[in-house]
Amino acid sequence: MYYIGVDIGGTNISAGAVSAAGELLFKKSVKTGKERDYEDILTDIVALIRDVQKDAAGEAAGVGLGCPGTCNAHSGVVEFSPNLIWHHVPLATDVKREIGLPVFLENDASAAAYGEFVAGAAKGCNSAVIITLGTGVGAGIIIDGKILRGENFGGGEIGHTVISADGPPCSCGRSGCFETFSSATGLVRITNDAMSKNPESLMHALARETGKVSGRTAFAAAKRGDKAGQQVVDDYIKYLACGIINTINIFQPDCLCIGGGVCNEGDNLLIPLKERVSSEVFTKKSAKNTEILICKLGNDAGIIGAALVGGT
Amino acid sequence: MYYIGVDIGGTNISAGAVSAAGELLFKKSVKTGKERDYEDILTDIVALIRDVQKDAAGEAAGVGLGCPGTCNAHSGVVEFSPNLIWHHVPLATDVKREIGLPVFLENDASAAAYGEFVAGAAKGCNSAVIITLGTGVGAGIIIDGKILRGENFGGGEIGHTVISADGPPCSCGRSGCFETFSSATGLVRITNDAMSKNPESLMHALARETGKVSGRTAFAAAKRGDKAGQQVVDDYIKYLACGIINTINIFQPDCLCIGGGVCNEGDNLLIPLKERVSSEVFTKKSAKNTEILICKLGNDAGIIGAALVGGT
Repeated sequence: MYYIGVDIGGTNISAGAVSAAGELLFKKSVKTGKERDYEDILTDIVALIRDVQKDAAGEAAGVGLGCPGTCNAHSGVVEFSPNLIWHHVPLATDVKREIGLPVFLENDASAAAYGEFVAGAAKGCNSAVIITLGTGVGAGIIIDGKILRGENFGGGEIGHTVISADGPPCSCGRSGCFETFSSATGLVRITNDAMSKNPESLMHALARETGKVSGRTAFAAAKRGDKAGQQVVDDYIKYLACGIINTINIFQPDCLCIGGGVCNEGDNLLIPLKERVSSEVFTKKSAKNTEILICKLGNDAGIIGAALVGGT
Repeated sequence: MYYIGVDIGGTNISAGAVSAAGELLFKKSVKTGKERDYEDILTDIVALIRDVQKDAAGEAAGVGLGCPGTCNAHSGVVEFSPNLIWHHVPLATDVKREIGLPVFLENDASAAAYGEFVAGAAKGCNSAVIITLGTGVGAGIIIDGKILRGENFGGGEIGHTVISADGPPCSCGRSGCFETFSSATGLVRITNDAMSKNPESLMHALARETGKVSGRTAFAAAKRGDKAGQQVVDDYIKYLACGIINTINIFQPDCLCIGGGVCNEGDNLLIPLKERVSSEVFTKKSAKNTEILICKLGNDAGIIGAALVGGT
């Protein structure tokens, strides 16, 4: 018996066979071709699931679909996915008709968070918040083993909580959202700002070397003693800590896991981040406090979480 | 059959008999005398509960205690209550030994939120966030009928989420917490700031009339066309909306209820607040969005919620 997880992204659709314990047995993927009609993409999703079934040993217990946007986990309808340009598509029903197994639908960020919860960094916890620092700041929240979806399935948008009123404009229309500071995009913005103010900074040479300003530029410069680079790192960690402390003060989860490319900075990020969090969190005098961890499953989290999310 | 709820405050301890439907049948109260030893206060709590039992018809099913601070709802121990200066007191066990009924312990803000949830503004909802704008900003969060306590029973501190990094200092040690802007104290601070910058403002005359600057001063001046007063009201609502939108973007509850003295401003507060929220919330295009409501139960919420919280 195994479970099939499907992670529907803007670029690729990945699907895999997952054991009940959350082990990804194997995976396959196809291009999404998101400019195509829903029916064409659906055909490919169904074909990919059959392909997994063909190669897997034993019977599949069910299928879980992780999809970007507002996903009604009860009805299985993708209510709105800006990324895929889908409006009110009955994805779970359509897949179930073709595959004949129980099919569950979940928001992709929540599915990935659930993957980390059952088989990754948050394994063994009762509650966890998973924050992904990518192009945006994505989040998934699990309390008592259940995904916090919100009554309209649009909850969990920690990236779109304002931490600096009157701060930089956000894609959501507000100003100073956590995402504008703590996403990879936000880090590049802060880096560019500092570079234009500090023409002598080593960051210029490093950016020329690698061909672009990236989330690594400031961290690399700071490691070599560049003052302006260190300031960018300090600022980035300050705002990241701010959003993380806010989240902990609300949820006090067993753990808060962060993922995304910037986590490759390791201790240069994690040590000062943890110091800030532990000195500012509301429950700093409590015997138990939230552990801050790095996500473990990378891109597989979405498949694993989708596969096992059924029935939560 | 009825339930006994006890609301332990810094000034008064109130207790009442509550029906299963959440109706407060009657209540009694005594002074807390919080400078006294725990044992003395415990004696008074037990006496107050017996007093309620004496006057109530029928048998009590159980007792719920709402207490400020970090309350371990599982063990019944008040881990830390800065207000009462209690450290690790086994309150529920001590009361149970004297009264001989099931005794439940809950944080007072969560108990009051649960009261609004079962019998007040949020009655009939599946999930709700209750935010009280008082000396501080208190909050209680209920999801799928259960109180969100956090793993160390210190969660729900929405008042201590930063909405303006580098903003005014907060009692918690951070800067720019929601509470520094949206509490009654925060409103008085903003009013005082505006008054010192605007010596011609009507707010000065109004404050002299009532003998002090209060949360009503700016609202009263704005109603009479005072520009500086209107600016205070606009600023207050801007930050209040900011914290409320943050909360909705995370939880997407059925409703978010606000309580506290400033809610007496009624539509002068509520209409512009709702406009801001509906134009900025992440799910503004969703068919379903969080309703913003005013709390209904006032100070009785704590007794009612404590009485009925047992077993959630």
